Parts: sequence; structure tokens; C-alpha cells
Amino acid sequence: MKKILNNPEAYVDEMLEGLTAAHPDVYRIVGEDRRAVARGTPGPEGKVGIVSGGGSGHLPVFTGYVGTGLLDACAIGDVFASPTADQMADSIRAADRGAGVLRLYGNYGGDVMNFDMAGDIVEMDEIETTTVLLADDVASAPPAEAEKRRGVAGMVYAFKIAGAAAEAGLDLSEVTRVAQKTADAVRSVGAALSSCTVPQAGKPTFEIGVDEMEMGMGIHGEPGVWRDKLRPADAIAEEMMDRLLSDVEIGKGDRVSILVNSLGATPHEELYILYRIVSKRLSDVGAEIVMPLVGRYATSMEMTGVSFTLLKLDAELEGYLTAPCHCAFWTVS
Amino acid sequence: MKKILNNPEAYVDEMLEGLTAAHPDVYRIVGEDRRAVARGTPGPEGKVGIVSGGGSGHLPVFTGYVGTGLLDACAIGDVFASPTADQMADSIRAADRGAGVLRLYGNYGGDVMNFDMAGDIVEMDEIETTTVLLADDVASAPPAEAEKRRGVAGMVYAFKIAGAAAEAGLDLSEVTRVAQKTADAVRSVGAALSSCTVPQAGKPTFEIGVDEMEMGMGIHGEPGVWRDKLRPADAIAEEMMDRLLSDVEIGKGDRVSILVNSLGATPHEELYILYRIVSKRLSDVGAEIVMPLVGRYATSMEMTGVSFTLLKLDAELEGYLTAPCHCAFWTVS
Repeated sequence: MKKILNNPEAYVDEMLEGLTAAHPDVYRIVGEDRRAVARGTPGPEGKVGIVSGGGSGHLPVFTGYVGTGLLDACAIGDVFASPTADQMADSIRAADRGAGVLRLYGNYGGDVMNFDMAGDIVEMDEIETTTVLLADDVASAPPAEAEKRRGVAGMVYAFKIAGAAAEAGLDLSEVTRVAQKTADAVRSVGAALSSCTVPQAGKPTFEIGVDEMEMGMGIHGEPGVWRDKLRPADAIAEEMMDRLLSDVEIGKGDRVSILVNSLGATPHEELYILYRIVSKRLSDVGAEIVMPLVGRYATSMEMTGVSFTLLKLDAELEGYLTAPCHCAFWTVS
Repeated sequence: MKKILNNPEAYVDEMLEGLTAAHPDVYRIVGEDRRAVARGTPGPEGKVGIVSGGGSGHLPVFTGYVGTGLLDACAIGDVFASPTADQMADSIRAADRGAGVLRLYGNYGGDVMNFDMAGDIVEMDEIETTTVLLADDVASAPPAEAEKRRGVAGMVYAFKIAGAAAEAGLDLSEVTRVAQKTADAVRSVGAALSSCTVPQAGKPTFEIGVDEMEMGMGIHGEPGVWRDKLRPADAIAEEMMDRLLSDVEIGKGDRVSILVNSLGATPHEELYILYRIVSKRLSDVGAEIVMPLVGRYATSMEMTGVSFTLLKLDAELEGYLTAPCHCAFWTVS
């Protein structure tokens, strides 16, 4: 196991200790069992709060996106494991500035169950909550069953846009509307070349041949749509763009953003090789790319692979996408 | 080879094509054979230019740091191979705004030879040049032979600080003085757990056992100071801090910055586990940490491993370190 760690059981707690030691201005640990993170300085009184949460091992997702113009707090589970309802309730309480809290997270069974329970818990504190789920992975279910899709890197756009809307002073129903519009407008697809290792498991999550790849694989190793020999970069990018563009209508004059995301080990060099095709395909349909993101925005530790996330914009979404934000992983100024 | 590419021979050119397609506001390809990159919009007339250069495969180093408050241009070789003198001359010409150009790069034989020749070439264009070499890797030679040391991630600090000094309007001799002061104040050490694969070679640069690590290994696989079983994170961090703190005097009241850098595959989670010890060790000697950097600032594609870079600050260096900058990989606002 080529990982730099101490006790695998302490992986997440030590990570949080280091994260908050490095960036005390941005992050602060809260909650009885120290498994929620809030903004170093809370947002202003009367601002709508936004929380997310989920398993660890995906930095910057989820915790890393706590910051100005982004999330107000986040609940953190063990690697690839849901936080508890109590941890999620801790994050909601930390995010509350008297104007209600949006729960904004990915469509995974355990997270949904626990965030629902957390909403019930904080009702006793008279905190109003709403929910928007990300279900952007087009490879995980067909369009007719879109509600079954997994949430993956699309949440990066949702955090950014909803975060900017809350920062601009919109109320809870309006921030929720903007977040839902983003969730509806975003599509992702991934391809994996190798697994990562969950520290407590001590061995790779899945096996894959040294010359193989899997199209459509999920970020925890969920099965994809095919496994075959590793293909050239351009063929991979073309197929991924085919899958995105067949799931959402993008045409002449549309404005879009695209995230070309490393799942961990795949270097920036290779993301940019893929970007050539991404850019060409969007140009071919007459779309204009706004603020493309290329890098490690949603990972599975040291997994080798990439995901593409396509967001169809309107003027409102574009305004919030390009607004300033700041966390330890992402600054837009 | 778990790499996403097309023709290995085209790896660098396709990477540059994607980089400039994604960020045309930041980067622009220049030079006859398109192997130099300059700022999307040149710096103001009369600003000192700063260039760097070296082999590809280290993004964001070197090319990624072309931007506002950073480098003005950069020459790019093949993966782990020096650019030619002509490519370096192209970068110098692109960086020249009439006030001379600082060559700021790492201490590798091929780069030094070619940048010296490039300086001779641009003398005919009447461009004045100066040189500052980074030689920050303490594992590569003892203090008595410090001039033989390799340049590694310390150049990130040098680009940032010299870039801010040039942006502030200092003249060539002053920018050169500030860059040299940074080079003198910075120390790095790395540890590798696995190799990367140079595309044109098609196999890992070096072999290392599945349970082994190498302390002090260079970013191209240059031999380190020991190879042994993989140690716990805290032991690795303690030894790396020992090596840095025995090479430069840091004491009570000193202000420092520290970069905890992934060589590629090592995830953010593990960098933050290491940061706990980094922070404790600096606190133990009474030093205060300013603007710590944790992430992928200087990589070897998908190599697994980390490096620490420690910079001893004074008021001048701290002012330039914390000044605004912008490129596709790093925004300080």
C-alpha cells in the first residue's frame, strides 16, 4: 500500500487536524466528535447557510469547499463512508445564521438517509432546512431513471453557484432554486484506469488489468459501462463527450462550463491533452466555454482516471459561477 | 503504462495545445517551434521580465507559473529534457519589455548550458539578462558543496517572490537581488514511494519495491540517501524536518513559509497528515508559519511521494510572497 499514513483508523482525524492547522483562517473543526468543519469565520448574520457532507477521500470534495462564497460547513465520514446524522446535524447548526440551511450533496443512499435524519434533529433547534441532491453521473443510470444517478464532480459547480447566491443575500427558497437549477443543468462521466486504496482496507478497492480501463466507473469503483484495453486519449475524450452531449441538449450560442477533473493520480499534463478534444467538441456544436476548470476538483485519493463535468449556463448561473470565492483549494477573485 | 495519451512523441505539444486552449487569457505559445509560453497579455512596458525553463512533466512547474506576478515566459523541453538554447532565447525575447530579463531556473547541467547560450543569443537583440539558479535540494549534496545541489520545488517560492518584485517595478539588479535572496533562503527535501513513467520511455523511470520508499530521491529518480521499508507518515515527516532544520538556522521569532508538496499521485489527505508534524516542528523551534502551501506545486507526473520546502522570510520576502498573483494553477488575491 503506497500510502503515507500512520494508523489507518486515524487517517481522517489526522487529515482534519492538518487541514485546520494549515488554514485556520478558512477551516474550523466543530461538533462533539470533531467530524464537522465550518468556516474559520462564520458567514454574516442572516446569510443562508449551505452544508454538504459525505465520505472522506475525495479532497477537495467535500470538506475542502468550506469557505467564502462556497459551503458554510460540512460533515465528514470515514473514507468512502457516510457521516452520521448527528455529525450532519452538527454541520447544519454550525452553518445556521438565522436564515435556514440548504443541504447540498450527492445522491448516495447512506448520505440521503442520514441527512434526512439530521434535518429532523435540527427541527428541534428551529432551523429550517431544504435539500438539493446532485445526481450528475450519466453512466450510472439512463435518462429515464435520472433520479437513480450518483452524484459526482457536478457538486463542485453546485457548491460554487449556490455559495455565490447565498453570499449575494438570496433567501433560502431562492438559494435552493438556484442550486436545483444547477443540479438539473449538470452532467458528468468518468473513466478509471486504476483503483485507490482505502486505508482501513489496506488493498485496492478493485482489481483492473495493467493495460485496462473502465468507462463510466464510479468514484468508489462502482461498475461502469465497459471494461477494455486502455484507449488513446483522444478516443477516451471523444466517447466521454459523446455520452455527455447525448444526455443534454447543447447547441449554437449556448454558454457552458466544463470541468476536466483528475481522479487523483492522473497528472495535469494528461488533463490538458484531453482538453483539446473537449474544446473542439464544444466548439463544433457552437457552444462557448466559460471559465473551464482543469485539475483535481473531486478525487478518489490516488485513483488514476478522469471525469468530465458539463454545465449548461444561463445568465444567472454564469454570474454566480464567476463570482469571487475562496477556500484552501480554490480562489476566484 | 497507466497514462492517458495519444502518441508519446506528441505528449508535450498536445499538452501545450490544451493548456493554451483552456486559458488563453493566461498563456500564449510563442517561438518558431512553439516551445515557449508567454503571458496571454504581456506585462507593462518597462517591467523586468522573468523567464524559467526546463523539462516537461512537472506541472505546474515550469510553464504553469507564467502569469501575473509570476513568470513572463518559459521554455519547455520534452519530458525531463532540457529545452534548446533557441527555445530559451524565444522565451527571453517574449519576456523582454525593455528593462532586461532574469533567468530563474533549477540547477541542472543541460538547463544551465542552454540558458547560458540563450543569453549570448539575445545579446544580439540587446536584451540584458541576469541569472539566479535554484539549488535547494539538501539531499543532493552536503552544505559544503551547496552549489552542486539540484533545484526542486524551491523555485515555486522564487517565481512568486521575484515575480512580485518585478510587478512592483523594481529594476533588473533589484529583482535579481530579491530572487537570489530567496534562492539562498530556501531548502527542500523529498521522498519517493513510486516512479512515474516518461511517455517516450513507456516504462517506470526506476524500480522500487511495493513496500519500499527512498528518502532524498530527486524528482527524476536521482538517487537519494537511503532506501528502506515504507515508514509511518510521522516518522517520514520528522526525518524530513530534521534534514531541513539541520541545514538552515531557524529559531525563536523567525517567520517562515513551508510548502508540503505532492510529487503527483500522493493525495491531499496525506499531505495534511504530514502537515501536523511540519507545523509542530516549526512551532517547537519558535517559528511562525506564514502562508503555508499544501498541494501539487511541483510534480513528476504520477510519481508517489512528497517534498517539503522551507523558506526563511524577512519583511521584504514576506511582502512579495503574500502579494497578489494569478495563473491557471495559483491565485493569491
